[in-house]
Amino acid sequence: SLQVKHSDKSLVFADLTAEEYNSVRDYMWAQKDLKISRSFTAKPSENFLFLIDLSLPRKADVLRFLDANGQKPAREATVVVFNGERGYIKEYLVGPLPGPLQHRDVTQKKYNTPTLPFTARTVTIGEYVELFKLLDKVFQKLEKPLSESFGYIRKKRELLPFECMPRGIKSGDRRTWISFFRDFNGMYIHPVGFEMLINHESANTSHWTIDRLMYNGQYFESIDTFIVDYEAGSIKKIVNKDLPNYASLKPREKPTGLGPQQYYLQGKRYSVKNNQVVYLDWSFAFGLSSLTGMRVFDIRFKGDRIAYELSVQEAMSVYGSVTPGMMLTKFLDSSIGIGRFAHELVRGIDCPYAATYVDTYRYIDTNATQRFRNSICVFEHDIGRPLRRHFSDFFHTGYGGMANSALVIRTITAIGNYDYIWDFIFYQSGSVEAKVHATGYISSSYKVDGNLKYGHQVAENVLGNIHTHFINFKVDLDILGVKNIFQTKDMIYEEVPLPWMPSEKAKIPQLVEQQIRTEKKAAMLHSAKTPRYLHIASNQTNRWGHQRSYRLQVVSFAGDHLPESESVEKSMSWARYKVAITKHKDEEQTSSSLYSQNYMWSPFVDFSKYIEDDEVIDNEDLVAWVTAGFLHIPHAEDIPNTVTVGNGGGVILRPHNYFDEDPSINSPDGVYFNQG
Amino acid sequence: SLQVKHSDKSLVFADLTAEEYNSVRDYMWAQKDLKISRSFTAKPSENFLFLIDLSLPRKADVLRFLDANGQKPAREATVVVFNGERGYIKEYLVGPLPGPLQHRDVTQKKYNTPTLPFTARTVTIGEYVELFKLLDKVFQKLEKPLSESFGYIRKKRELLPFECMPRGIKSGDRRTWISFFRDFNGMYIHPVGFEMLINHESANTSHWTIDRLMYNGQYFESIDTFIVDYEAGSIKKIVNKDLPNYASLKPREKPTGLGPQQYYLQGKRYSVKNNQVVYLDWSFAFGLSSLTGMRVFDIRFKGDRIAYELSVQEAMSVYGSVTPGMMLTKFLDSSIGIGRFAHELVRGIDCPYAATYVDTYRYIDTNATQRFRNSICVFEHDIGRPLRRHFSDFFHTGYGGMANSALVIRTITAIGNYDYIWDFIFYQSGSVEAKVHATGYISSSYKVDGNLKYGHQVAENVLGNIHTHFINFKVDLDILGVKNIFQTKDMIYEEVPLPWMPSEKAKIPQLVEQQIRTEKKAAMLHSAKTPRYLHIASNQTNRWGHQRSYRLQVVSFAGDHLPESESVEKSMSWARYKVAITKHKDEEQTSSSLYSQNYMWSPFVDFSKYIEDDEVIDNEDLVAWVTAGFLHIPHAEDIPNTVTVGNGGGVILRPHNYFDEDPSINSPDGVYFNQG
Ligand SMILES: [Ca+2]
Ligand SMILES: [Ca+2]
Ligand SMILES: [Ca+2]
Ligand SMILES: [Ca+2]
Ligand SMILES: [Cu+2]
Ligand SMILES: [Cu+2]
Repeated sequence: SLQVKHSDKSLVFADLTAEEYNSVRDYMWAQKDLKISRSFTAKPSENFLFLIDLSLPRKADVLRFLDANGQKPAREATVVVFNGERGYIKEYLVGPLPGPLQHRDVTQKKYNTPTLPFTARTVTIGEYVELFKLLDKVFQKLEKPLSESFGYIRKKRELLPFECMPRGIKSGDRRTWISFFRDFNGMYIHPVGFEMLINHESANTSHWTIDRLMYNGQYFESIDTFIVDYEAGSIKKIVNKDLPNYASLKPREKPTGLGPQQYYLQGKRYSVKNNQVVYLDWSFAFGLSSLTGMRVFDIRFKGDRIAYELSVQEAMSVYGSVTPGMMLTKFLDSSIGIGRFAHELVRGIDCPYAATYVDTYRYIDTNATQRFRNSICVFEHDIGRPLRRHFSDFFHTGYGGMANSALVIRTITAIGNYDYIWDFIFYQSGSVEAKVHATGYISSSYKVDGNLKYGHQVAENVLGNIHTHFINFKVDLDILGVKNIFQTKDMIYEEVPLPWMPSEKAKIPQLVEQQIRTEKKAAMLHSAKTPRYLHIASNQTNRWGHQRSYRLQVVSFAGDHLPESESVEKSMSWARYKVAITKHKDEEQTSSSLYSQNYMWSPFVDFSKYIEDDEVIDNEDLVAWVTAGFLHIPHAEDIPNTVTVGNGGGVILRPHNYFDEDPSINSPDGVYFNQG
Repeated sequence: SLQVKHSDKSLVFADLTAEEYNSVRDYMWAQKDLKISRSFTAKPSENFLFLIDLSLPRKADVLRFLDANGQKPAREATVVVFNGERGYIKEYLVGPLPGPLQHRDVTQKKYNTPTLPFTARTVTIGEYVELFKLLDKVFQKLEKPLSESFGYIRKKRELLPFECMPRGIKSGDRRTWISFFRDFNGMYIHPVGFEMLINHESANTSHWTIDRLMYNGQYFESIDTFIVDYEAGSIKKIVNKDLPNYASLKPREKPTGLGPQQYYLQGKRYSVKNNQVVYLDWSFAFGLSSLTGMRVFDIRFKGDRIAYELSVQEAMSVYGSVTPGMMLTKFLDSSIGIGRFAHELVRGIDCPYAATYVDTYRYIDTNATQRFRNSICVFEHDIGRPLRRHFSDFFHTGYGGMANSALVIRTITAIGNYDYIWDFIFYQSGSVEAKVHATGYISSSYKVDGNLKYGHQVAENVLGNIHTHFINFKVDLDILGVKNIFQTKDMIYEEVPLPWMPSEKAKIPQLVEQQIRTEKKAAMLHSAKTPRYLHIASNQTNRWGHQRSYRLQVVSFAGDHLPESESVEKSMSWARYKVAITKHKDEEQTSSSLYSQNYMWSPFVDFSKYIEDDEVIDNEDLVAWVTAGFLHIPHAEDIPNTVTVGNGGGVILRPHNYFDEDPSINSPDGVYFNQG
C-alpha cells in the first residue's frame, strides 16, 4: 500500500554513522597541535573534543542534488573543541567524509569572533567530576550539620546536586548555585533546603571556591561562618525527618493493567529505510541532532516537497522562587543537548508495541561514539476520531467517512528532571503536526519563608516552582519551490446594507487578507493580536485561482515571556514571537546555540538579529520560527510526575488552497455506502 | 478491573424510554381541549405535539436522592405543543411517570409569558411539506429559466433547498431566504445562484408569498417580473453546464485500506449498564437531549462527585456573504435539535470496531417515538502517547511510566451539512475533557460579484463562505459539595533584589492568585485578557494546605463574536464569554433555547441575563459556561468534506490540588523497572 518509493537521496540529511564519528575523532586526535585529550573525563584545563555532529550541507547544494541531479554535497562534521589550555572554544568543520579528511576553523565565520569565550562552554562530565570532588570535600567539613539536618551519611546517604542556570549575573561568570536533594529516585522533588554557590570559573580547579551558602532561607558567606553559626545555635535549624519516597514511580497496585493495543491487520503501511520514512503518500528524511533534537527534512506529499526542514530548536523554561537555586533559573536545553538525551523508548508505554524502533548514534561529551538503542520510534496510529465523515438522511441518503490513521515519528528526551515527548505527525489530509508534551519531574525548592508566592506546596516542605515552558520549532516550508510569500487571513465585521432591502443594515463577517512583506512586520509578538490564519504561500494558484499555501496553526498556552529589559533575554529572543518569518539563510540555521545557556548576557546567536535587518520577504525562501508552550503552576498532581494531558503545544501545518480538494478523498481508507 | 460498581441511581438522569414517550404522547392526545393532531405532517394551522423530552429533576432533589437516601425525584416530561389553531406555543410538564399522568402549563414559569409567539417555533416536517408544495408550484412557472440555467427537470433533476436563518429582520418575521442546490449527494457545495425569499409567517399556508428572487446576483420583486426580464434577455444569465459530483464521498481508490485497529486483550475495562458507565475509578450517568445533545451527570472519581453535569448547550455559526441566503445566516443548532441528529455510528470509522454501542430514543417532530440504533459509543482508547513517564540514568537509574488509555463517550450529530463529533474523555489522571470537532460539508453560495470578500472559491462558481463556529458547554463542577468559589491564577514578572546580592535585581515570575466574587467579574469576554488558570475550588484544602480545585483549560481558536449592537446578538449572548461563572439555578438549565433561532431579536433565553443580576459567587453552587470554537475560512481542502485535524475545540477539566498527588500512581497500568 505504499504509494511512494524509498530513495537513497535522503542520506544527504543522515546523522553521522558510528564509523564517521570515529573517523572524525581519530582525525582530530591526530592533529598534534590541537593536543586533544583522550580522557573520557578530561579536566577543564585540558583540550576536549566535546561534540561531533553532522554539519548540514547548504540548502542550495542539497536542492541541486535532490531536484536537479546535482552532485551529492560533501558530508562534513561540526566539531566543537573546548581548549582548556588556551582558554577558548573553537568550532571546526571536518570533512569530506569518508576522507581523506581536512579541518578548518569556522569560529570566525559562524560567530564573528576568532574564539569563543571559555566560560561559554557547557559543563562537561570531566568538569562535573571535579565539582563532585569539591562537593565531597565540602561535605566532609559539613558532615555534622548535614547529617543532623538532612540525614546525610557520607557514601551512603548522599545529598544529590541540581544546578541552576545561568551561572551568575554577567558575561564570564561561572558561579553556579547548586541545590541539594535527598538521595532518592526522583530526587528533583526532594529538596532539603540547602544550597551552595560555587565559583568554578577558572580552568584551574584549585582556584574554585564556595562563595555563599543558603540553609533554610538563611545566607552565609562561607562554610566556616555557617559552621560557626550552626554550632552557636544562632540559626533556624532543620531537623532531619525520614520521609518515604513519594517520588517513586513504582506502581502502588499490582501492575496488571493492559489498555487497548493497536494492531496492523494489513501489516505496516509505512516503511523505514536508513533515515527515510515512506507512508502512503508521504515521504521524509529524519535525523536527531545531539543539540537540538529531532528533525525531519524534505517532507513530500505525493512526491511534492512541502517543507525542507521541520525541527526542534530549543526548549526553555524560566522559573520563579525566593531561593537562589531557582530564582534566576532559565534553562536553555539545547546548550546541554536536547537530542543528546533521546534514550531508549519503552515498548507499549513510550510508543506502541508494534512500532518500528530505530537506533541513533551520537558523539557528545564522552570521547566515544554512543549507540542509543530504539531511541526513535515510528508508528501508524488510530487517532480514534474520524478524519472526516458525513451522514445524510434527507434528499439523498448516504454515508461517507474515513478513520484518522496517521503516522507518528517520536523521540523522548529526558533532560534531567523533565521528559519532553516530541512528535511529528503526518495525516492523510496533507497536514503535518509538530507536537511536544512535557512529563517527568517538576523542579522544586525547599519551602522557606516567602516562597509560596512562587508556586504551590506539593509535598512536605516542598515548593513546586512556577515556570514557563517555551518550545521553538523551525518550519522551513517550501510551497512549490523556495520562493514564497507570507500571508495572513482573518475576519472583521463590516456593516453593509442588505441588497434586497437597502434601508436595512447588518454587520457581516468579511475575510481580510494581507501580505506581510518585511521581517519586522512578520514577527508576531505573543502579546500582540495575531491574525488567526498565518500562511506560507506560493504565487502559483490552485484550480480556483487562490494562492496555494500551507497554514500554520499554533497550539499554545504559553505564559509571559521574560521582559526584554532583562539582560539575559537576548539569549532567548526567539521566545518573544509566537511566529516569526525570516528570509532563509544558511548562516541562520538555528534560533539558539550551544553557548546560549552559559553566555546568556552576550549570546552568540541572538534570534532577534535575524529580524533586525528587516529584509523583504516577498518571493523569498521563507522560514517560520514557531513558539509554543505553557505556563506551569505546579500542583499536588505533579507528584510524582507531571502528566501529559493538557501539558503540550505545537503547530499544525495545514494545506490551504494548496490542493484543489481534500487529498484524503483518494485514500484507500475511505468508506462509502448508501442505506439501501 | 472495574474499581467501581454500577448503581441504578443513575436512572434519575435517564432519557425517557420508548414506553414513556408513548405514554406521554397518548396522555396528551387524550386531552380533548388541546386537540392535538395525530398526523405525522400536521399543518401549521393544526395543533402539533412537537417535542417530548426528559424534564431534568431539580438538582437539590437529585442530590438528596443520590447522597442522602432521599426519595427518588418524580420522572417528568417536558412537552412542547405548537398550537396552530390559537397561534401560540406552550410548554407542559407531564408526569409523574409511569402514571397516572397529569399535565401543567409551565410556559409562564419558564419564560415569563403566558404563551410563546407562534413564529418562534421550529419549522416542522409538516411545515416543510407545505413549503415544498409551494416550491413545486413556483418551479412549474419557472421551469424554462431553471432548466436553461441549472438543468432543472421536474421530478427528475430537482433543485434542492437550503434555508437561511434568521427568517427575517425582526421579531415575528418568518421570511426565509432559500438557496437552491443541484440534486446531488452533498448538495451543500453545489449552489446554483438562485435564491428565493418566502414569507411563511401565516399559519394559513394559502397566505404564503414569494417576496423576492435572487438570480445570479440580480434581485427581482416577483416571479413574474423575473420571468419578464428573463424572457426579455435583460438579465445576466447563467447557462447550465453539467458538472461531475465533486461532493461525492465515494472513494476514488478501491477502499482496501485498513489502518491500525485497537483490541482489548484484557477484555473491556469499562461497563455500560442502562445509562451509566463505570471505568476503572470513574463512573458517570449519560443522556442525550433531543435539543442540546450529549450530556453526562454525576461524574465521580473514586466515588467522589467532581461534576454534577457536563453538557453540550449550543452550536452556533455566523456566516458572511453578499448573497441573501448566507449573508444574515446565524445558525443556532439547538433550535432545530442537536441531539435530534445523533444517528447511527459507523463501526470502525466513527468509533472503533470494538466500542460499545448504545441505542437512543427520541420524540421530536414526528408524532412517534424513534429509535436511533448505535447512536452513542463508548470505548477505551490508547491516546498513543504516555500519560506520564520518566527515565533517569544518573545518580539513580530507572524508568517509570504509564500508557495513556482513556475512556471516550461519543455521539456524532449531522445537522444538515455539518457533522459535529462530540466527545467526553475520562483520563486516569482524574481529568475530563469535553471536545468537539467539525466535519461534513461546508455551507456555500454561488459565486457572484463581490462574494470573494466573504470566502474562497472552492469549486466551479462555488464560494465557501467565511463563518465562525462557537460551541457552548455547561460545566457544573461540584468540588467536594456544591459550595465552591471561583479562583484564577496567573503569573507576573516582579523585580526583586537577589537575597545574596541585594544590589542586583532581577525580574522573577510570581504566582498571582485571585478570587472572583461576583458574576459580572467572572464573565470573561473573548476579547479581554483572561487569566491563564481558571479554577472552581472548594474552601477545603488538600494535604499541603491548598484549596482543592479543578482547573478549566479551554482549547479554542474562535473568531470574533458578533458585535453586541446587532439586534440578534442577544440570542447568542453566551458566545461573548470564553468562560462565565454563574450561581446555579434550576431555572437557568440551558444557555440557549428551542426558540432562539426563530425569535433571535427577543429571545426567551438570553444568557447574559444570568449574569446581569451580578450575584455573589462566593461559596455558592457554581456553573461554568465555556465557549470554544474556531474561525473557518473555507478552502479547497474543505471539498468534499472538512477534515477534523485542527478543526476542534473544547475544555479540559484538570484536578489542581484536588488530590494530594497524581491519582494515576495507583493505576494498575503503571510500569516501573530498574536497568539491572
Ligand atoms: Ca533577516
Ligand atoms: Ca522555505
Ligand atoms: Ca445570576
Ligand atoms: Ca456546581
Ligand atoms: Cu513544567
Ligand atoms: Cu466550518
